[in-house]
Amino acid sequence: MKLFVFSLILFITCEFVYPQTLNRIDDYKSIADTIVKTALRERKGYEWLKELCEIGPRLSGSENSLKAIYWAENKMQQLEFDSVWLQPVMVPHWERGEKEFCAIYKNNNLIKELNVLALGGSVSTPKEGIKAKIIEVRSFDELKQKASDVKGKIVFFSRPLDQGLINTFAGYGGAVDQRVYGAIEAAKYGAIGIVIRSITTKYDNVPHTGVMIYVDSLPKIPAAAIGYLDSDYLSNQLKVNPDLELVLRINSKILDDAQSYNVIGEIKGTEFPDEVIVVGGHFDSWDVGCGAHDDGAGCIQSIEVLDLLKRLEIKPKRTIRCVLFINEENGSRGGIEYGKFALSSTEKHIAAIEADRGAFTPVGFTVDSDSITLNKISEWLPVLEKASIEWIKKGGSGVDVSKIKNAKALLGFVPDNQRYMDLHHSANDVFEEVHPREFELGSAAIAIMVYLLSEEGL
Amino acid sequence: MKLFVFSLILFITCEFVYPQTLNRIDDYKSIADTIVKTALRERKGYEWLKELCEIGPRLSGSENSLKAIYWAENKMQQLEFDSVWLQPVMVPHWERGEKEFCAIYKNNNLIKELNVLALGGSVSTPKEGIKAKIIEVRSFDELKQKASDVKGKIVFFSRPLDQGLINTFAGYGGAVDQRVYGAIEAAKYGAIGIVIRSITTKYDNVPHTGVMIYVDSLPKIPAAAIGYLDSDYLSNQLKVNPDLELVLRINSKILDDAQSYNVIGEIKGTEFPDEVIVVGGHFDSWDVGCGAHDDGAGCIQSIEVLDLLKRLEIKPKRTIRCVLFINEENGSRGGIEYGKFALSSTEKHIAAIEADRGAFTPVGFTVDSDSITLNKISEWLPVLEKASIEWIKKGGSGVDVSKIKNAKALLGFVPDNQRYMDLHHSANDVFEEVHPREFELGSAAIAIMVYLLSEEGL
Repeated sequence: MKLFVFSLILFITCEFVYPQTLNRIDDYKSIADTIVKTALRERKGYEWLKELCEIGPRLSGSENSLKAIYWAENKMQQLEFDSVWLQPVMVPHWERGEKEFCAIYKNNNLIKELNVLALGGSVSTPKEGIKAKIIEVRSFDELKQKASDVKGKIVFFSRPLDQGLINTFAGYGGAVDQRVYGAIEAAKYGAIGIVIRSITTKYDNVPHTGVMIYVDSLPKIPAAAIGYLDSDYLSNQLKVNPDLELVLRINSKILDDAQSYNVIGEIKGTEFPDEVIVVGGHFDSWDVGCGAHDDGAGCIQSIEVLDLLKRLEIKPKRTIRCVLFINEENGSRGGIEYGKFALSSTEKHIAAIEADRGAFTPVGFTVDSDSITLNKISEWLPVLEKASIEWIKKGGSGVDVSKIKNAKALLGFVPDNQRYMDLHHSANDVFEEVHPREFELGSAAIAIMVYLLSEEGL
Repeated sequence: MKLFVFSLILFITCEFVYPQTLNRIDDYKSIADTIVKTALRERKGYEWLKELCEIGPRLSGSENSLKAIYWAENKMQQLEFDSVWLQPVMVPHWERGEKEFCAIYKNNNLIKELNVLALGGSVSTPKEGIKAKIIEVRSFDELKQKASDVKGKIVFFSRPLDQGLINTFAGYGGAVDQRVYGAIEAAKYGAIGIVIRSITTKYDNVPHTGVMIYVDSLPKIPAAAIGYLDSDYLSNQLKVNPDLELVLRINSKILDDAQSYNVIGEIKGTEFPDEVIVVGGHFDSWDVGCGAHDDGAGCIQSIEVLDLLKRLEIKPKRTIRCVLFINEENGSRGGIEYGKFALSSTEKHIAAIEADRGAFTPVGFTVDSDSITLNKISEWLPVLEKASIEWIKKGGSGVDVSKIKNAKALLGFVPDNQRYMDLHHSANDVFEEVHPREFELGSAAIAIMVYLLSEEGL
């Protein structure tokens, strides 16, 4: 009987609400169509990404990162956002220094030089490098089992990303412990350095860097990633001759924290200017390639979201704020700083969207919120389908926006992920790898979501 | 009250059926997982596609197409399919001949040579080419309005693919009339040749060919496509100087129909060997690039579908037949021949799946069937999601399998389409443009669909 009453209520409710919802949805669909067509035909953001990439990589604290910051500030000003400002934040400052060197030696004879990149944050080696025998392991468990054999050696962590997983971020997650914690684990047993197999889905020889950490209670040992194919080579050579030696030379510098900035621009809401919707990505990148997908694309898409609304003369009810967070890759200082500001502000942050998964064809949005809010946002799917969004699901948002603890909903923009780990944190991550239509569809999808949030509120 | 009774029935039915369905679905999901992991980790089909591409393009009737046919027959035999055979079919035989030439002249002085490709099926020009003034139009309507000005000229159809459409196949559909019917329409008003703007989503200068047709009641005039950037150039030049002349030289040959074959291989069903599920693509390509996406990929994915079942020792209840149809690009003779065979056979064709939309990340399946069958197939979505399939919808299947008029369901495999028209029918369509994970996910998605069809029947 309950079911009957429920059915009746449902029936009556639908009858009552349907026409109004339908009208609004049809309006929204029409606006969504216009946003998609404009983005795809004009390709403005794609051109801006090219400009950004021409500046080069944007590692936190670098001169280049400041050039890029002023470029973005200037771009937002040219686009006549209502306000544009820089939010100061001190960031870690690590420099790679002169190109690394890594090579296999047998009885002091060079066998082969390997493609190598120091991990971000690694200490340098002595100027002449370190030279030691190699112990290959595929996990921290295996390392522990071989603990007595580690002292004085270089540990080679060689477990590859599992290509069998359909989600390459899951594959990455299953291998990245070696990169982040490898130096700590190896130091526990007296290793003098580590190299890891690059975490990648591409069977090439381009090394992939990324952040690694130390603890003060253990020696800080140098750490580097070698190319996938060179990792195979090393592994095969060690099977034949376990007494090979590796030379690793890293010329990095850990400098004092440097002055940097989040770049912020906004369009003021016409009805609820104190209700804010944040859209952003992280503006720093690693120091190889130019961080085109990671995360130049997410940043430029966020700028383009605001510009699309302006270009189409859409005046949002709520304030739309683009935040380019600095230092996601090795410290999250920009995210933390903005999060503090959001907590202390009298504004109400109703939602924040992070775009930091590459600029491939849009697939969905993850939402971190209470279930009523999630349900409300999920109802907008028919509008978002106009930009090829297939689903809206409960899920995490992103490293930076998750620091905005007082937002009602935190969202993550999710594009197709099959190609992302081919280029992530490597010299492969260049402008030419970004497809203009896929990029612009992303801008459009996020713009539609932002627009719906601004009109409907949460 | 009706609603109450309906709700009750629904409730009771669900209660009854749920546990059984769930068990089967869990088994299916587990098998689907294994299929996906195997495809992604082993990348066998991707390697076979490389072998195929090394043979070169496979235009119907060409020597290369026969080489590829014997390669495929041999591959299926090596993979130990239960039966492998060639189905004879006569195909049109058009040859491009010596490289075309197209250039703009002003007062008999060469201004610029343009990147050009004759359209497939075009007649040749006289050996010295044709030379005439140019009339640019963007539609057949505009051509009709300018009818009196066409005689003796070369018509330049310059309407681009609309980048504003999210589905690039829809964009293609909105421009392709110029290529297919342009020569007929222009000949009506006395034109001596046509050139068209290449139908592409990529702003480069690589010309895209494709089929065009004539009618016997009108003069057959030569037809070619020029690069997108050269089309812009020509268009801009004509604005300044409408009296420019174009020289077009095409050296094509229309030869007698040639002997060719569909390549067919199958795994016999263990319980219902006379119930057949066809999976296939078209084996011919255009004569530039190597038809990697169009449709080498669909063909190799179809071969890999059978091999994945064999590798995993899955013995399907129903017969799974891979059909590589010849001559989809300019005649569909292979599809027609197989369709005739299916109609005359005592076997029951329960379903046929076509893969001919490139090897990008899988998105969905379209189903052409009655609604009960569609509903049944739609219920499998939770299993197919394992291979990143987002939806199953009513829709067309494909040029070749649609000829199997007596199949209960005709399906089209639908991958992401944003990049496809960048390379379709052009020298851009090469192996390097195929991404191994995207390709293999496609093999897996189709294999899961084929497996479910074979276990569940229709």
